[in-house]
Amino acid sequence: MTGPAPAVAAVRVAVRRALADVGPGRTVLVACSGGADSLALAAGLAWEARGGGTWRAGAVVVDHGLQHGSHDVARDAAATCRALGLDPVRVVRVDVGTAGGPEAAARTARYRALENVADELDAAAVLLGHTLDDQAETVLLALARGSGERSLAGMRPVRGRLRRPLLGLRRADTEAACAAQGLAAWHDPTNGRPLDGTGTGTLPAADLPLRSRVRTEVLPVLEAVLGPGVAQALARTADALADATDAVDAAAAVVLAAALDEHAPDARPGDVVLDVAPLADAPAAVRRRALHDAAVRAGCPPGALARVQVLAVEALVTAWRGQGPVHLPGGRVASRACGRLYLVLPNAGGDGAGDARPRTGTGGPRPDDHDDQHDDRE
Amino acid sequence: MTGPAPAVAAVRVAVRRALADVGPGRTVLVACSGGADSLALAAGLAWEARGGGTWRAGAVVVDHGLQHGSHDVARDAAATCRALGLDPVRVVRVDVGTAGGPEAAARTARYRALENVADELDAAAVLLGHTLDDQAETVLLALARGSGERSLAGMRPVRGRLRRPLLGLRRADTEAACAAQGLAAWHDPTNGRPLDGTGTGTLPAADLPLRSRVRTEVLPVLEAVLGPGVAQALARTADALADATDAVDAAAAVVLAAALDEHAPDARPGDVVLDVAPLADAPAAVRRRALHDAAVRAGCPPGALARVQVLAVEALVTAWRGQGPVHLPGGRVASRACGRLYLVLPNAGGDGAGDARPRTGTGGPRPDDHDDQHDDRE
Repeated sequence: MTGPAPAVAAVRVAVRRALADVGPGRTVLVACSGGADSLALAAGLAWEARGGGTWRAGAVVVDHGLQHGSHDVARDAAATCRALGLDPVRVVRVDVGTAGGPEAAARTARYRALENVADELDAAAVLLGHTLDDQAETVLLALARGSGERSLAGMRPVRGRLRRPLLGLRRADTEAACAAQGLAAWHDPTNGRPLDGTGTGTLPAADLPLRSRVRTEVLPVLEAVLGPGVAQALARTADALADATDAVDAAAAVVLAAALDEHAPDARPGDVVLDVAPLADAPAAVRRRALHDAAVRAGCPPGALARVQVLAVEALVTAWRGQGPVHLPGGRVASRACGRLYLVLPNAGGDGAGDARPRTGTGGPRPDDHDDQHDDRE
Repeated sequence: MTGPAPAVAAVRVAVRRALADVGPGRTVLVACSGGADSLALAAGLAWEARGGGTWRAGAVVVDHGLQHGSHDVARDAAATCRALGLDPVRVVRVDVGTAGGPEAAARTARYRALENVADELDAAAVLLGHTLDDQAETVLLALARGSGERSLAGMRPVRGRLRRPLLGLRRADTEAACAAQGLAAWHDPTNGRPLDGTGTGTLPAADLPLRSRVRTEVLPVLEAVLGPGVAQALARTADALADATDAVDAAAAVVLAAALDEHAPDARPGDVVLDVAPLADAPAAVRRRALHDAAVRAGCPPGALARVQVLAVEALVTAWRGQGPVHLPGGRVASRACGRLYLVLPNAGGDGAGDARPRTGTGGPRPDDHDDQHDDRE
C-alpha cells in the first residue's frame, strides 16, 4: 500500500497544523468556490475529519451571481463537497454591491456570508484556500498601489476565525492534489488561466481583473528576469513585514496607553484625549500607528482613514505651529490645545473643536480591514 | 528674463534642501559618473555653490576600469565638472575585486573610493545621483530576492556623509535638466537604455545586469498592467518601510539594553551575555533585530549574518529544548545556559561553548551594510 500523492499529503498536513488548537467536536468550515485551491482544501479537511473523531467538517459555497452559470458552478461545488463527506454544506447566494469596485464588493459580500454561516453554525474556524501564489500576487498589488507596509504584509495565516492553511503551498500543488484525487476543479475564467487547452472561457487581457493580470503578465516576467523563486521571495517578504508591523503595533499600543489622558477636565464621553509628549518621543511609524489607533478609538471607521490624514494629525504633534483642526472620516476632528491632542465628534451645534459638519459615516468599522482589502480571491 | 527649466529648478531645490544643515565653507562633493543623473546633480551643486558664499563644491569621478573606454568617459565627466565650476575634481581609478559578484564588487570599490576622497578633503557631504527610478528598482530587486523588510526600505536619503538629493525626482527629470543646460550625458551601455536611436553599445538583454533588466523589462510591464504610478508607489513603499524598520530598530535597542548582562560571572571580555526573559517577551521582529545586533556586538560581520542564523539563535530563546550551540559567521557561537544566551568567540582550545573551529572571517564589519548592498548604481 502506497501513501497519498505528495501534494495530497501536503494539503492534509497543512490542514492538520492549521487546526491543531481546535478541539474535537467543534465545527470547522471550508469556503469552497469549486476551484482547485479550495477544492483541494475541502478534500484535505474532509480527510482529516474522517471518522468523526476530530471536528464536524462542513463547507460554505458562496454564489456571487456575477457570472452566467454561477449557480451551476456553486451547485457542482456543493455536490463535490458532499461527496467528500463534508456536512453540512451550505450554498449562499449573495448580492454583490458596488462599493469599492467589483472585486472589493464581491470580497465584502463573500466574507460577510462566511461570517454569517460561521455564526449560525458556531464554527470555530473557516478555512480559506489562498496559496503562496495568491500571497505573492497580493504583495505585488499592494506594492504597486504604494499602500504601505501593512498591505504589503499580505494575508495572515490566522485572522479571527479565518484560517489560511495553504499559504505555504503553491497553486500547482493544489492542482496536483485535485488531479491525484480525481477532483474536477472549476476554472474561473476571470482568473486568466487557460482552460486545459480548450481556449474557451478566458477573457481578453484588458478585461481581466487586476489580480489576474498580475498573475498572467507580471509574475511570469518577474520570474523570467529574476529567477523562478520570485513567488516564494514575495511570500517571505510578506512574512517579514507581518512581523515588523506586529512589532510596530505592539509599540504603538504602549505609546498610546502612556499618552491617553482619561481624566482630561474638558473631555466628554467618547472623546480621546492624548498627552502630546509620549507621542512626540516615539519613532515615526509607532507614533503614526498610535494616532491611527486613537482615531479609530474616537470613532473613525478604520478602513476610511487615509495616510495623509494620519500625517496631518501627526503634524499637530511634531510640527505644531498653531494650525487648525484636522477633519477625519466619521465626522471626527483632531485638534491640539494645551499640550493635549483632542480626537472628538463635535456637537452638531458647533462647540467642541469648532466643527459644525453634519455627522456622517459613523456606521462603525467595516467588517474587513486592511488585511482583507487585498484579498481578492476565495 | 525667464527662470530655469522646471527640471533644472527641481534639481537645484533638491540640492539646497539636502544641504540645508551643511555650514558655509564646508566641502561638498558630488559623485559623478557622467550619466544624466549625476551630471544634473553636479550642475545643481555647482549652481547652488556659485559665488563661493555657501560651500566649496567639488566632484569625484570613479573610473571602474571595467569597460573599454572607461578612462575616456571619466576624463570627459571630470572635464564637464570643471567646466561647471566644481573644484577640486578628482578622478579615481579603482581596482574592482570579485567578492559578491561584479555589481557588488564595483559598488564596494566605488564607495570606498568616495569615502577616501571625502576623508582626504574633509568633506561634509558626498552627493549621490540616485533617483526615484533607482529607488523603485532597488525595492523590486529586494522584493524579488526576499531579502526582508530592511532591504525593501531601499536607499536612505541620508546615510552618514552620503546624501541622495534626487530620490524624489524621476530619471526623466535629470535627463531634461541635462538637456536644458546643454550637458551631454554619457549613456552606460549596461544600463540598457537605447543610445538615442543609434542602437550601438547596448547589450543583449540576457547579458545586462539584473538591475538593468528590472528597468527595461519588469518596470514597463508593471506600469502597463498596474498603471503609470508604479515607480512612485514603490518609492512610497520604501519610505514607509524605512519608518517601520527604524521603529523596530529603536525597540530592539531598548530590549537589548534590558537583556544585556554585563556582569555574568563566566563571561570573558568580548562575550555578549543576554538575559533570555526580555527577549522572549519582545515582538518577534524586535527580538530578531536585538539578536542580530547582539551577534554583531559579539563580533559577527553584520553583512554575513543570514536570516536563518538569526532564527536559529531565536530558537534558543523561544523554542528551548536543550539544543546545541548555533555557529555564526566570524567564528562566533551562540548557546544557552541557565536562562542566559551566550554569544562568544570560543577559544581554539575548545572551551567556552564547546566549539573548536578555527577562527575565520573575523575581519570585522564590511564598509557597506544592508542599505548599500542594493544600491548598484552611482
